[in-house]
Amino acid sequence: MAKQKLRIVKIGGNVIDNSTLLDSFLDDFCKLTGYKILVHGGGKIATEIATKLGIQSILVEGRRITDAQNLEVVIMVYAGLINKQIVAKLQKRACNAIGLTGADANSIQAHKRTETEIDYGFVGDVDLINAVSIKSFLRSKQVPVFCGITHNGNGQLLNTNADTIAAEISIAMSVYFEVELNYVFELKGVLKDVENKNSLISELNVHEFESLKSQGIIARGMIPKLQNCFNALNRGVNLIKIGDTSIIKETNKIYTKLTSNG
Amino acid sequence: MAKQKLRIVKIGGNVIDNSTLLDSFLDDFCKLTGYKILVHGGGKIATEIATKLGIQSILVEGRRITDAQNLEVVIMVYAGLINKQIVAKLQKRACNAIGLTGADANSIQAHKRTETEIDYGFVGDVDLINAVSIKSFLRSKQVPVFCGITHNGNGQLLNTNADTIAAEISIAMSVYFEVELNYVFELKGVLKDVENKNSLISELNVHEFESLKSQGIIARGMIPKLQNCFNALNRGVNLIKIGDTSIIKETNKIYTKLTSNG
Repeated sequence: MAKQKLRIVKIGGNVIDNSTLLDSFLDDFCKLTGYKILVHGGGKIATEIATKLGIQSILVEGRRITDAQNLEVVIMVYAGLINKQIVAKLQKRACNAIGLTGADANSIQAHKRTETEIDYGFVGDVDLINAVSIKSFLRSKQVPVFCGITHNGNGQLLNTNADTIAAEISIAMSVYFEVELNYVFELKGVLKDVENKNSLISELNVHEFESLKSQGIIARGMIPKLQNCFNALNRGVNLIKIGDTSIIKETNKIYTKLTSNG
Repeated sequence: MAKQKLRIVKIGGNVIDNSTLLDSFLDDFCKLTGYKILVHGGGKIATEIATKLGIQSILVEGRRITDAQNLEVVIMVYAGLINKQIVAKLQKRACNAIGLTGADANSIQAHKRTETEIDYGFVGDVDLINAVSIKSFLRSKQVPVFCGITHNGNGQLLNTNADTIAAEISIAMSVYFEVELNYVFELKGVLKDVENKNSLISELNVHEFESLKSQGIIARGMIPKLQNCFNALNRGVNLIKIGDTSIIKETNKIYTKLTSNG
């Protein structure tokens, strides 16, 4: 029997920080038929709240150095403020959302990152996705909404990159579903020239990626994002698209489609 | 067929503010066999965070006047920090907790309170408990952990009294289960004389409550709590106990038991 389709959509800070864009995106997200999961990043709110609380935010390549105080801030902002506001907005649209961290129903276990030169603090690398649990939410017609907080199974919550969470959930769910993963960010897709919006790469395979990377055409921040994607395609995910919020509109054809085959 | 048992335990600020007490309570909570739900209040953390953020906290008889800024604080603290830390602590103890606001899976709908003399702001009074949804979590062997945040179904999150949430969930679930509701607070139970710990009332029915109330023996803060309880007993809840954290220990016999019959 053919697998049923599952769409996993990750939105980043640019959507969360712009309430008009977020509302319009959620309208479209609710129109998606079939099984779906939303994963959201953090946006600027965590840094704003931290500043007001007198807590310093240090970001290294967009990743927060998460000491104990910063961890409390991201738990409050990601799992509390942002997650629950998105859930309430989806419920308003008759989309039966349920907001989750990795601790809830033991959905995502991670371990504290220790092996790097930089001490990121309470930052988690994903060990295990509880696909059975996530599947049971989907079968109950619920729409899981994940934020970037996981746990280590030993009582410790951890700040975890939402792009990675989206990729890992996609991989784990591909056992049961035909998974399409969408990364929503501020651009129409991967550009050959960030200054030129018309330089969109409409399709990219792993060999082309390696080539563009070695030529320095694909920029720093994009490299880990794309590496995550090709890793996911290698490990069972059917299709990945990268683009702006219109990526989930049925009529839209402008995005970067990633394929594993060369 | 006899209904299965469901234990609903509400903990207040005195447990949440004391990490040793919280850990010990959670140890005991995990030992409870059968279906169970935890409901938690807020504690002092919300006021502390609000103060640090330069937001004034105004409490009227222990209830927060919840303007838009205070609402953001309680969403962050109740649904984020406290709820997810409790969930992670329960998961550590192999208790498959899932943290929920009323918005999640549309568990609890409320409306913004308008009919009172005092403008409480974004404070919600419960309209509807989604017992089917809560039952499905229980049947999936998950332990729901509710905080005092609900939604109005129209995208608005609302600050809602956790005692009331515990009572309303108990009433709604009594259709399917034989429900025991436990209120954990700082005393051994209801006292005739708050200065005298030996004046514990071990059992109290609604007539005795009315009599003690008219004599001024039962104090101000206790009145709405007990009225909630007798309301719940009238509407299907089997048993209510009020006491300190040892109330959930199997060996403990010191608490106030409330009964509807006179």
